[in-house]
Amino acid sequence: MIKKYLLAPGPTQVPPEVLLRMAYPMVHHRAPDFGPVMEEISEGLKWLFQTRNDVLIMASSGTGAMEGSVSNFLSPGDKVITVNGGKFGERWGKICKAYGVNAIEIKVEWGESVDPAVIAGHLERDPSIKGVYVQASETSTGVAHDVKAIGEIVKSYPGTIFVVDAITALGVFDIRPDEWGIDILITGSQKALMLPPGLAFAGVNDKAWKMNETARCSRFYFDFKKERENLRKNTSAYTPAISLIIGLQYVLKMLKEEGLENIFARHKLLAAATREGIKGFGLELLPKSAPSDAVTAVKAPEGFDGQQIYKRLREIYGITAAGGQDHLKGKIFRISHMGYCDKFDVIIAISGVEMVLKEMGYPGELGSGVRRVEEVFIKD
Amino acid sequence: MIKKYLLAPGPTQVPPEVLLRMAYPMVHHRAPDFGPVMEEISEGLKWLFQTRNDVLIMASSGTGAMEGSVSNFLSPGDKVITVNGGKFGERWGKICKAYGVNAIEIKVEWGESVDPAVIAGHLERDPSIKGVYVQASETSTGVAHDVKAIGEIVKSYPGTIFVVDAITALGVFDIRPDEWGIDILITGSQKALMLPPGLAFAGVNDKAWKMNETARCSRFYFDFKKERENLRKNTSAYTPAISLIIGLQYVLKMLKEEGLENIFARHKLLAAATREGIKGFGLELLPKSAPSDAVTAVKAPEGFDGQQIYKRLREIYGITAAGGQDHLKGKIFRISHMGYCDKFDVIIAISGVEMVLKEMGYPGELGSGVRRVEEVFIKD
Repeated sequence: MIKKYLLAPGPTQVPPEVLLRMAYPMVHHRAPDFGPVMEEISEGLKWLFQTRNDVLIMASSGTGAMEGSVSNFLSPGDKVITVNGGKFGERWGKICKAYGVNAIEIKVEWGESVDPAVIAGHLERDPSIKGVYVQASETSTGVAHDVKAIGEIVKSYPGTIFVVDAITALGVFDIRPDEWGIDILITGSQKALMLPPGLAFAGVNDKAWKMNETARCSRFYFDFKKERENLRKNTSAYTPAISLIIGLQYVLKMLKEEGLENIFARHKLLAAATREGIKGFGLELLPKSAPSDAVTAVKAPEGFDGQQIYKRLREIYGITAAGGQDHLKGKIFRISHMGYCDKFDVIIAISGVEMVLKEMGYPGELGSGVRRVEEVFIKD
Repeated sequence: MIKKYLLAPGPTQVPPEVLLRMAYPMVHHRAPDFGPVMEEISEGLKWLFQTRNDVLIMASSGTGAMEGSVSNFLSPGDKVITVNGGKFGERWGKICKAYGVNAIEIKVEWGESVDPAVIAGHLERDPSIKGVYVQASETSTGVAHDVKAIGEIVKSYPGTIFVVDAITALGVFDIRPDEWGIDILITGSQKALMLPPGLAFAGVNDKAWKMNETARCSRFYFDFKKERENLRKNTSAYTPAISLIIGLQYVLKMLKEEGLENIFARHKLLAAATREGIKGFGLELLPKSAPSDAVTAVKAPEGFDGQQIYKRLREIYGITAAGGQDHLKGKIFRISHMGYCDKFDVIIAISGVEMVLKEMGYPGELGSGVRRVEEVFIKD
């Protein structure tokens, strides 16, 4: 018997009480008892997103909200900036290409965060740029981009929207769209929201809605305007993912009970402890700076295959972490501490890494990482 | 205490064992244990779709697969035929419009089925028509279109694909895409598949894939080619709706155990019994011919409001049926007998209708509908 520990950066662990809640008998989304559920989650999402604006809900994975953030606000031929500092930043560019949108891609070495001054420079040189598309937390590298600083810059361009993919950031660390000038903020259900995948969200402000009026890219299922009209009637344009919505209602209650400040503090502590544990065992982090509090990307030590570490964690110890993607494959492994995670998830992760690497012949001292984790926790 | 009975044409009842199965702890979709699940459901879907072709799986409601059936196979300016015999037929036209596709809409009175000869006529006059978009079962009216006869017609046009929305037909009655010349066959999870909403499916054949090569409509999330490439590696382009996939794996086992012939026979019997029960109580069906075995649309008797009937069924008896949509609102109500339904679901529905209408002053004889239902069942 090997117990299973899901420590990947999405899907993440779903609390058993949420799993059981979603086993609630099917209800009809047009029946009157579903309206109050929608109303409640609508309010709850505004709270979670720290926004006064509507937060749209779609039945899709997070990529659907990414696509909609392009197709609902731009026209073919429009120029935007995308930041490619990892797999998901790269995706912005692919989506733009699919819609005939001209993306100026700012390439950032995977593992580093974008320099806001570079974005400022582009905007100064070309104020016709219609949007800036960034990740708040780049899942593939464990790096956070400084969306507050970027928001400050984009704010002063009335014809430019700032779009932030917060799929592994929202509910992890503080993001204030209304204060920071984030015009579209998106997330998905399977990360800090502690739900299975299948829901995508987008908080959209008036600056973005204004651009929606003239945007000519094709769209139908991800029609944000139609979703907003429906949301305001406490319903949805198309059949919603009802069981996930029921789960969301419950999860929002759990999150509210904990409180945003505590949620952010918990993630900060777990992330710090993970990083200390990794370093305590003599390993190196991928991010040179600005590590995300959602996921920690660790360099595989010289001569060790990151995919082997990931594989052995799973096969020998039942821990599902994540490997590296594309050119980082084999070079890193990633451990999530996002969502339904607490102190012992970190202990498990670091302990698992210690045992696996030791078995692979790595010279680190067993327990040296765990000790540092414990030190962080008892100091807290 | 009022027990709840979900007899709407989607979402439909989900068997309790499936609900609990979906409470399975979250697994990671890129971890090796998920591949075999995908492989199994891939095979199971081919069986259910009665096709040799790949059946794509998307995290969305059925409308996503409808949209993808347009955007992946057509270019702006292309001409297609859409059959509008109800709310969902009308949707084809809206999707085409969103993509700049020129839809020749064949309007059919809501409650009637399309005359295949009309489609043949259009194709004869204009062989540049690239596609014919039809519902196998129009959920809003309870009418089945003769997709076998239409397929025979479209088959002989090598540059025209036949696209069938079988969202309330697949797993209800016999549809044979490979034999009947259906090039794209789509469905959703929340109907005869006895699952919550959140998954959409599309079976696509080579004739359609050939059109995909030159189709220039924008698409990203619903990129069928990318999904096929991933499906063949037992994975998906984007994070799948994992809990629903786990449920699907279980549901496919249940359906296989029952067998397609038995599934179709069960739906045929339940539909026939429902129709007899309705007529036995003196009510009239909306469909003049070709009623769908998925859902029965009933005319509200002269002087009675269909919405009131629907409302009272729910409030007094706990039965969630459905009302009419758009101009049929108030004129009809609809009872589903699709998916996880058996004989007593029909008894409950007819009995509920009898009591509600009697209470509203309708002169029918209590029990007269139920009697006819029982007669149908004991003769079977």
